[in-house]
Amino acid sequence: MTDDPPFNPALLPAGFVDRLPPEAEAEAAGVETLMRVFAAHGYDRVTPPLLEFEETLLSGAGSAVAEQTFRLMDPDTRRMMALRPDMTPQIARIAATRLPDVPRPLRLAYAGPCILMASNRGEGDRQISQAGIELIGPDRPEADAEIVAIAAECLATLQVRGVSFDLTMPSLTTALLDTGGFDGQVRGTLMRALDRKDAAAVARHGGELAPVLIRLLHAAGPAHGALAELAAVDLPPAVRALSERLAATVAAIEARVPGIRLTVDPVEFRGWQYHTGVCVSVYAAGQREELGRGGRYLSNDDEPACGLTLRPDIILRAAPALPSRVRVFLPWGTPAETGAALRAGGYATVGALAPDGDARAEAVMLSCPLMVVDGQAVPVDGA
Amino acid sequence: MTDDPPFNPALLPAGFVDRLPPEAEAEAAGVETLMRVFAAHGYDRVTPPLLEFEETLLSGAGSAVAEQTFRLMDPDTRRMMALRPDMTPQIARIAATRLPDVPRPLRLAYAGPCILMASNRGEGDRQISQAGIELIGPDRPEADAEIVAIAAECLATLQVRGVSFDLTMPSLTTALLDTGGFDGQVRGTLMRALDRKDAAAVARHGGELAPVLIRLLHAAGPAHGALAELAAVDLPPAVRALSERLAATVAAIEARVPGIRLTVDPVEFRGWQYHTGVCVSVYAAGQREELGRGGRYLSNDDEPACGLTLRPDIILRAAPALPSRVRVFLPWGTPAETGAALRAGGYATVGALAPDGDARAEAVMLSCPLMVVDGQAVPVDGA
Repeated sequence: MTDDPPFNPALLPAGFVDRLPPEAEAEAAGVETLMRVFAAHGYDRVTPPLLEFEETLLSGAGSAVAEQTFRLMDPDTRRMMALRPDMTPQIARIAATRLPDVPRPLRLAYAGPCILMASNRGEGDRQISQAGIELIGPDRPEADAEIVAIAAECLATLQVRGVSFDLTMPSLTTALLDTGGFDGQVRGTLMRALDRKDAAAVARHGGELAPVLIRLLHAAGPAHGALAELAAVDLPPAVRALSERLAATVAAIEARVPGIRLTVDPVEFRGWQYHTGVCVSVYAAGQREELGRGGRYLSNDDEPACGLTLRPDIILRAAPALPSRVRVFLPWGTPAETGAALRAGGYATVGALAPDGDARAEAVMLSCPLMVVDGQAVPVDGA
Repeated sequence: MTDDPPFNPALLPAGFVDRLPPEAEAEAAGVETLMRVFAAHGYDRVTPPLLEFEETLLSGAGSAVAEQTFRLMDPDTRRMMALRPDMTPQIARIAATRLPDVPRPLRLAYAGPCILMASNRGEGDRQISQAGIELIGPDRPEADAEIVAIAAECLATLQVRGVSFDLTMPSLTTALLDTGGFDGQVRGTLMRALDRKDAAAVARHGGELAPVLIRLLHAAGPAHGALAELAAVDLPPAVRALSERLAATVAAIEARVPGIRLTVDPVEFRGWQYHTGVCVSVYAAGQREELGRGGRYLSNDDEPACGLTLRPDIILRAAPALPSRVRVFLPWGTPAETGAALRAGGYATVGALAPDGDARAEAVMLSCPLMVVDGQAVPVDGA
């Protein structure tokens, strides 16, 4: 037996962090901006709880993330509850059980923290921040296009540079393997090869489909080239229908957002567990992690839906810092109206709490570049 | 053995709710307003995580709420973590361990959800919303006054009517009982009698202190009357010092906020577990629950601090509804610039997703009082 190490009061569990000034403010302001854009497009905010019974949280769309989920027992009912790892299944539940009679298309927005039991690859965040939209009811390329267009507007508003949207159609790969008659171990081997983008292994295990799969593997890239390649290969009808839906979605997005950077990866499927149609990942130049992701799925009661969840915590790393309020020191005795006028003008006022003390020194100590002298905010240096 | 009842997918655990439109938006807007007022007074936002190791979350100021706290095991380290029931102890930890070198007074603001294991009396919310400020460093009536003044400004900004601040000094009762030599069972009996405001029981068990205790019991009410009563009774020096601090705090608050409604309850002590000085509860007319609470305490490393935590979820019930964006339906083919101009003008636009359909009927169905006709937003009725 070993003794416990001495306890460090500053230590947080891996994957959990304190956001300090100015990052905490920047993240909150970022979420406000996203929610404002969502609201301006008619997406009404809903706020589900952090915890639900595990049966509701992890059924349907939620079952995909069950392994990532912390559970705890409700002492009142002795039933297991779960801490949400993702808000989308909650929104699907609300749409089906709380808002079934609201006419469709139903547009909902949401923001809040989520908790993952284990970080990816044992590192990274376990508390993540989500802000997203779900568009419930229509099953059309124009609906998929609306969520991408709104996400693009969000990121433009936050001045994120080099944004691109990567579109995939996970069901296309599945349908292709179905038509090729792949199942069992061979199918698993082939899917791992596709996942690794390992053309040699795809050639080895792909049988008659190998030439098509390798062409599609190499087709990944800017949307038009990838779609041209998809159009040129000979696809079975069920797969062709999916590729045409993907092409129609690209066209609908480009019609709404001229100049948007779209890439397509026709045989990507990994990480899309409850999605049934076009999926999208959002990237920014120089940022390894996704800024958001979403796509088409079947909501509760098999209602068609699509949505996109942005990650304000990651967007923050890609967005330029916003100017914060300039701090003005109010020496003891400054009239209340003077402080109020400065606050109304966008300043942050920092009031003296005692009559004694050197006001100028206190202003400097409290990081105030300005202080009030004779009713006016003046630079501390020149005061 | 009984079978489990059939599972209802709409059921949430007791004390957890979905906030739907328009309440979810109203609560978020309320939090934004509170945080804007805090920031304008130089309070910098920090965002601690929802979970911490239980040793950090439930030590010091946090130990008072340990019984209210959900715990779960970190699968990586096998150490127990806790879901925060209150953010103030987290802010105290951040001040001591992350910001020890930032000059004092240190002004911090925060907002977020908290989770209680059991609701009070088996009913009420188990997920609550907090938004607050902590002022760390100074131990002066003017510091206590600042947090009350800022809370008053917050509630005035949200147009909450009939706001009053109830001031207590829990250590005053304790000190009075100490000087009376009460301990053990008699002290417990007397404290319960005071808690119930049961003058007869106080008379029975209060011994020589009974006349003073009963006068103070009856003194509770508007600040000036209560303070006059406190000043008139004969108090031991240690208790007198506390009552003078209370009086000085009332004077400092009134100097900052002329006309503020203050009440004082000199022998109230219940529910203040980690506080060491003047405490405050915030009420609104017609609202049974507190809108917020706070007071003076010793932060980590015994650093003087005071703070006040508002409850946006409860404030929402007392504040008038804010006007929401007016919805404008955009028929298929509406130019993008038209929609953008309307959004910039404060409208919410709801776009058609398909060329077919009766635009006017769709506008009505989607709760849009306006729709775009010939590039202009016009009433749907008159379209």
